[in-house]
Amino acid sequence: MNGKFIVLEGLEGAGKTTARQAIIEELQSQGITNLVFTREPGGTPLAEKLRHLIKHETEEPVTDKAELLMLYAARIQLVENVIKPALADGKWVIGDRHDLSSQAYQGGGRQLDRHLLSTLKETVLGSFAPDLTLYLDLDPAIGLERARGRGALDRIEQQGLDFFHRSRARYLELVKADPKAVIINAEQPIEQVTADIKSAVRNWLNSLK
Amino acid sequence: MNGKFIVLEGLEGAGKTTARQAIIEELQSQGITNLVFTREPGGTPLAEKLRHLIKHETEEPVTDKAELLMLYAARIQLVENVIKPALADGKWVIGDRHDLSSQAYQGGGRQLDRHLLSTLKETVLGSFAPDLTLYLDLDPAIGLERARGRGALDRIEQQGLDFFHRSRARYLELVKADPKAVIINAEQPIEQVTADIKSAVRNWLNSLK
Repeated sequence: MNGKFIVLEGLEGAGKTTARQAIIEELQSQGITNLVFTREPGGTPLAEKLRHLIKHETEEPVTDKAELLMLYAARIQLVENVIKPALADGKWVIGDRHDLSSQAYQGGGRQLDRHLLSTLKETVLGSFAPDLTLYLDLDPAIGLERARGRGALDRIEQQGLDFFHRSRARYLELVKADPKAVIINAEQPIEQVTADIKSAVRNWLNSLK
Repeated sequence: MNGKFIVLEGLEGAGKTTARQAIIEELQSQGITNLVFTREPGGTPLAEKLRHLIKHETEEPVTDKAELLMLYAARIQLVENVIKPALADGKWVIGDRHDLSSQAYQGGGRQLDRHLLSTLKETVLGSFAPDLTLYLDLDPAIGLERARGRGALDRIEQQGLDFFHRSRARYLELVKADPKAVIINAEQPIEQVTADIKSAVRNWLNSLK
């Protein structure tokens, strides 16, 4: 039996690491222990090299389009060489970000052309998509404050607040239209966020039976 | 006055280096000496890093789509950060490869989806295109024999002969449909190839007057 692909999405500082732990605990409590973890951009040798270029290129200005194209190059390497083989092998994959991040950050935040974004998604990824997406929603100002507490921000995290407000708006628009996505209120106390995530995963697992 | 963008295209071993010298001599004989040289993939700090990944990644298999996306990421960096500023500054740019190479190698050779290729070209490059393309045409077997004589072949040059026959066919199809492109018979003796290139550049310069 094929595994499932669960993706965590959200702005910087939304609490994806804590959320991941909640997913793991809920899956394990249901006897699902054959887990693989991925992050985007990255997760393969080539994709990690692209991640470094995307986040830390400083020798020249990175155009918005080059950023988007490198993100998709990294994504298709991860999907073809890691995620699909793992799922075919019966493993469950928990992804820290996937395509929705590009739709939100490069589409909403950077305001890149919707036609370019939708065509890349369709022609590069085809029908491949997560089985469940958990989107951790919060006010960008709160998330950035948390992210700053963790240390230096990378090239994308250094964008202004407007960028993140546009990204959040696009996240919400797309998640609300996606029957396989759930919005988690990430401004709540951590115990409540964890409980909501476990509940969302449990409900989804029950729907599969 | 804006400069012009002249591109050399052709399979491995077609003689692009010799051809470039012929273009330079013809332009100089007409008093055009403000020249900039580019190569693709590459030509900017980020694009050269991508060139290395495209040609020499060995830690994992590079998917055809990732290769194509990295090529376009490198291309848009070169166009926005080098070629367009040079042209605006009145310089003439001589490019070793440009978009036609992706159409021929990734479209013809690797047989990637035409819709993906045309959409990338349109949405990434917009209306930007060379003012003159010189396509050096020759039997792939002859070109590869010459390229082998130069040393080790890279990841793309190691493709089988069928790949290069498909690339040549796509080159010819697209060049014949492009009023700004000229086919040069690169199987001729080098003196004749040089004479044909100078003649093509001279005719084109006269057409601009």
